[in-house]
Amino acid sequence: MRTWLTERFGIGVPVVGAPMAGVGAGRLAAAVSAAGALGMIGVPSAATAEWIAEQAAIAGGDGRPYGIGLLAWTLDGDPARLDAVLDARPSLVSVSFGPYAGPVERLRRAGITVVTQAGTTDEARAAERAGVDAVVARGSEAGGHGRGDVATLPLLQSVLDEVRIPVLAAGGVATARGLAAVLAAGAAGAWVGTAFMGCVETALPDAATGRVLAAGETDTAYGRVFDVVQRLAWPPEYGGRALRNAFFDRWAGREEELASDEEARAELEAARRSGDYDTAYVYAGQAVGMVRRRRTAAEVVAGFAEAERLLRRFAT
Amino acid sequence: MRTWLTERFGIGVPVVGAPMAGVGAGRLAAAVSAAGALGMIGVPSAATAEWIAEQAAIAGGDGRPYGIGLLAWTLDGDPARLDAVLDARPSLVSVSFGPYAGPVERLRRAGITVVTQAGTTDEARAAERAGVDAVVARGSEAGGHGRGDVATLPLLQSVLDEVRIPVLAAGGVATARGLAAVLAAGAAGAWVGTAFMGCVETALPDAATGRVLAAGETDTAYGRVFDVVQRLAWPPEYGGRALRNAFFDRWAGREEELASDEEARAELEAARRSGDYDTAYVYAGQAVGMVRRRRTAAEVVAGFAEAERLLRRFAT
Repeated sequence: MRTWLTERFGIGVPVVGAPMAGVGAGRLAAAVSAAGALGMIGVPSAATAEWIAEQAAIAGGDGRPYGIGLLAWTLDGDPARLDAVLDARPSLVSVSFGPYAGPVERLRRAGITVVTQAGTTDEARAAERAGVDAVVARGSEAGGHGRGDVATLPLLQSVLDEVRIPVLAAGGVATARGLAAVLAAGAAGAWVGTAFMGCVETALPDAATGRVLAAGETDTAYGRVFDVVQRLAWPPEYGGRALRNAFFDRWAGREEELASDEEARAELEAARRSGDYDTAYVYAGQAVGMVRRRRTAAEVVAGFAEAERLLRRFAT
Repeated sequence: MRTWLTERFGIGVPVVGAPMAGVGAGRLAAAVSAAGALGMIGVPSAATAEWIAEQAAIAGGDGRPYGIGLLAWTLDGDPARLDAVLDARPSLVSVSFGPYAGPVERLRRAGITVVTQAGTTDEARAAERAGVDAVVARGSEAGGHGRGDVATLPLLQSVLDEVRIPVLAAGGVATARGLAAVLAAGAAGAWVGTAFMGCVETALPDAATGRVLAAGETDTAYGRVFDVVQRLAWPPEYGGRALRNAFFDRWAGREEELASDEEARAELEAARRSGDYDTAYVYAGQAVGMVRRRRTAAEVVAGFAEAERLLRRFAT
């Protein structure tokens, strides 16, 4: 399974552990990279430059390549965090969801491989024009934030035909079958978040992991409820896919009202602190139905490596 | 590309031309089968037994295998149409969306290969228990009717791990890349509708085809508006994905009101007759963005055959 991704970073399995803010920090990134894929640190919107430096030291502690994922809309007017990323010199940085062109230019000038996530073919074309090294075609079944418009399989086919840079496939890839699929389509690898959410190396509280392991494929929902209640400045076209819960159901369709409801805001903050996931969010993609037990990142990566056998069947 | 699908029907390309009521009748089915895939007739909810017999004669006129797609919810209390299908003796019948167990049993007893469409892993398990020969894992990006819950890529991985019968992948497969993907995952073939919608052999009026060719990947919407306005007895869990238009936008979220609005009903019927697709529906999946010009079914099938080359890359 040699692709642009494996060759660029000298890794054995063409999988990137997608940056998951609040779920995957230095420890998960290090574990994914140690297992032969490429782990990434998800930088939360409120993270400090110091936090980035600390987590980067953990992720890169053994000298293996790793990546850092940044939210473009959080970088404006706060150069310290991008500086911290540049200082850490990770092998890969993703800058997505907002004005990414400036950061991409700085990172590339520093010799760092840069990607961005695209949820439509138009966004992928724009990413290529902006000079990223590769583009992540992110389908609407993916967990966390992004567009809710086009699913991975049609998006991937379209993007692969429309851009010349390497394409990574994000959204719904949870097993070797999914990895084999996107490689056969022509992707350079898979960008995998949800499949790592049951891992012992995540930063998730146990109660949240329990929700992940119990959730089925139809238990997620897409929307802006959790961003609106927290007054987060996410560009509105990038909603989030999370486990559907009572709080989401109560407020979906009433986002305007929610935006000024201080009681709901306090309720969510309290629930986050107490670990009440009927109210607090757990971002996850539709692949969550295939995440059924606690595993190590090494086990998950070893599972993906089976894609090679699936692809070899077509040799004859 | 030898799979259960190619071996069962003696075809060269592991693609089924999905049954599309109102779009693909005998002519399209015959053209798809003549090109080396397996064409199907989509039986509209109001079709008569005579219509089925006529279209079957066209589809099977040259002796090639073809299929017929039935809507399970339309069969109750009207045995004539199932009898017409049994008389026609197609190679494949799909019975989906409603109580399919009885028809499946009759068809299988007659020696006809039978499949059904599943939109969740639970539905796929139930299909296997009901005795179908294969199950179609239909993702939410697919055009026309079905569940809107799980996208093709995650659904396919899950279903392939959970059932022992052959699995066909539906939803979003529009090019050789998509076919290679689902075969690599382990599917026995792809169930393709939208990619054939630009074909000269469809029953679509030119104005509708024009909408198809002009539509982009984000121009579809999923919901029940067009079923509700027509008072069709679709089980409510099976909505439809169609090109988003002014009528859909006006009524989405107001289905209860629409259900008793006689003016809207008359408006839709008039628009269907006059070919006004700002009001009338054109069912299509997210893959519609990749359908950009009029082609023959033979050209589309030849395009899919390129999947073999994509898969051979992994031989080394």
